Amino acid sequence: MPPVGGVRLATAAAGIRYRGRTDVLFALLDEGTQVAGVLTRSRCPSAPVDWCRAKLPAGTARALVVNSANANAFTGLTGRDAVALTAALAAEAAGCSPDEVFLASTGVIGEPLDGGKFRGVLEACRARAEPTGWLEAARAIMTTDTFPKLATRTARLGGRDVVVNGIAKGSGMIAPDMATMLSFVFTDAAVAAPVLQDVLAAGADRSFNCVTVDGDTSTSDTLLAFATGRAGPRIESADHPDLPAFRAALDEVLVELAILVARDGEGARKLVTVLVEGAESDRSAHRVAMSIANSPLVKTAVAGEDANWGRVVMAVGKAGEPADRDRLAISFGDVRVAVAGARDPAYDEEKASAAMREEAVTIRVDLGLGQGQARVWTCDLTKGYVEINGDYRS
Amino acid sequence: MPPVGGVRLATAAAGIRYRGRTDVLFALLDEGTQVAGVLTRSRCPSAPVDWCRAKLPAGTARALVVNSANANAFTGLTGRDAVALTAALAAEAAGCSPDEVFLASTGVIGEPLDGGKFRGVLEACRARAEPTGWLEAARAIMTTDTFPKLATRTARLGGRDVVVNGIAKGSGMIAPDMATMLSFVFTDAAVAAPVLQDVLAAGADRSFNCVTVDGDTSTSDTLLAFATGRAGPRIESADHPDLPAFRAALDEVLVELAILVARDGEGARKLVTVLVEGAESDRSAHRVAMSIANSPLVKTAVAGEDANWGRVVMAVGKAGEPADRDRLAISFGDVRVAVAGARDPAYDEEKASAAMREEAVTIRVDLGLGQGQARVWTCDLTKGYVEINGDYRS
Repeated sequence: MPPVGGVRLATAAAGIRYRGRTDVLFALLDEGTQVAGVLTRSRCPSAPVDWCRAKLPAGTARALVVNSANANAFTGLTGRDAVALTAALAAEAAGCSPDEVFLASTGVIGEPLDGGKFRGVLEACRARAEPTGWLEAARAIMTTDTFPKLATRTARLGGRDVVVNGIAKGSGMIAPDMATMLSFVFTDAAVAAPVLQDVLAAGADRSFNCVTVDGDTSTSDTLLAFATGRAGPRIESADHPDLPAFRAALDEVLVELAILVARDGEGARKLVTVLVEGAESDRSAHRVAMSIANSPLVKTAVAGEDANWGRVVMAVGKAGEPADRDRLAISFGDVRVAVAGARDPAYDEEKASAAMREEAVTIRVDLGLGQGQARVWTCDLTKGYVEINGDYRS
Repeated sequence: MPPVGGVRLATAAAGIRYRGRTDVLFALLDEGTQVAGVLTRSRCPSAPVDWCRAKLPAGTARALVVNSANANAFTGLTGRDAVALTAALAAEAAGCSPDEVFLASTGVIGEPLDGGKFRGVLEACRARAEPTGWLEAARAIMTTDTFPKLATRTARLGGRDVVVNGIAKGSGMIAPDMATMLSFVFTDAAVAAPVLQDVLAAGADRSFNCVTVDGDTSTSDTLLAFATGRAGPRIESADHPDLPAFRAALDEVLVELAILVARDGEGARKLVTVLVEGAESDRSAHRVAMSIANSPLVKTAVAGEDANWGRVVMAVGKAGEPADRDRLAISFGDVRVAVAGARDPAYDEEKASAAMREEAVTIRVDLGLGQGQARVWTCDLTKGYVEINGDYRS
């Protein structure tokens, strides 16, 4: 990952819960950095989510503190105090106002987080912060993730290259609105906060909001984008001629991270892409696709490499969206298994099974009603998921 | 189970798919039998569901044919032909019109069902049909169920005892609207079809529609009630003085069957009762309870006997219903673990864990907002669920 002008990173092991690994990311951002964010729609958000929601409207950021191992969610007044203390410590280290500090926490819910754990740690981070260290940053924010998640793109804006770097962590509690628990995007482009907010929200709808692992929505889901403004033209309105190029780069980073999150779903062995077409609208197609992607019966069939298209019919039927059984066609990979409301006359169990044995499985559904389409990503549901989540706290 | 006047039963092994077990139930009903039904809301219903939906408005029944092993769903014209042929064979055997034959099928979706398999079988069933054989009936309709599901009650109507017998089968694809795949209730009470329909639909809302195993809705969910009218007063309107006693007996049968279905959820080791109170309305309470009962993270925590109340907070938060984090209280069994938006000051991990080690676990949530309440049942999510469903067709 290339450096992003105006961004310096450091990680640390603050000993919040894990042993022998880092659990804190501290990102320092140059003065003038613009910020945008998309936050969980949970009615019971974590204390850091409340903090970010309050600070986002001002649109400027100087520091980001992320910790893993403890979500600081449902921690009552203690949680609010921990957030305020962390922001104060970060502001002191970064030399800014606490209002320009953004926070995110991921891990166990309901355990008090001791904000004092960051005392000294953030100061030491500032002293050794570097423009490099993206991989270490992605590692520090992991919980049950099995690999760090990073993506980068370059866009040519006004004759200058700008960089868009992103990191993310999953991998349970992945559901629409928001899809991933935490993701952070950094760019040296000069995009004003309101424009950045619009681009980020639209990008989230086509990426993280199209990913589901278990249909559960985190109390902590947080996507933040920081634009330091160190490169390229100043983009202050939605009709700026360079905005499409920036949007394309940002969208690609978000989609790549979202797919990495689905691929690393807890216990996942397969990446599943669900394509729905022929719906009455894109919105309807999205709902049908999510119904398929969230169905435990579809996901266990994928885990068993079973071309059980009957369960796809079931998931279409339960979505509550317009569907006509007798126009439905279903394919696994390139193998059409059902058409016009019944098994494909040319159905070949062996070919269908071969498609299911791939590491990446595509389920394609044509509703045969209209032009609406959608694409979402998920993973299979394995015994590993049950094992990880039946024994998470111990 | 006592006999029900006007009902005779027989089972058979038609060799549809299974070996060494029965797969057909044939119930013969005396002339004048009234029928009511609640059917799946899937947009892709099975051929037998279409058949029942068309025949229910006439309100009379003379025969019921149920087969396991093949759902005859998403089988196109072949499926419709199979249904018509089965109804014709049953009508011939029962000496009635095909319009008075009700049908249900459960098992694999998308495989053509050969209606010819019933030829001779139903005739032979009629010849040996008896008022007894309820356990065998409940066994014949099982798929992945681990035990047959039966319930019975007696009601005193107009100085005479009437019987209400019910059988059901689960145990995957259990979700609201409808909850169980198949359930059949038989009574010798004399309840006119429109009244029976109202009582049955209301009873389903408090029983099967309060059960979820995996949130998946079957293409085949069918609940039928048959009233032969051989005992007690004729109940032809909703204000009949004996209706409340009949309703109470029917409701108890439906609730008992629904709980058996939840207890026998695929791979289940624990019955989970979710109680939500303090919601703004009963409807809101039901939605919050279903969000908890459908959450894979809550269900895996129960499987792991982990008092992970943070996941309950998550599920309350994602329900989209009014909730105030700082008024929320959560208990496992009698052990309150969280109150006023944070861990209970008297929290005792050992006591909470002991509550999770019970075979029947109760999760109680008080939203602290109003008077709305709801009760739903589910089971834990185990590796067994993944195993059963990852290898169902083989």
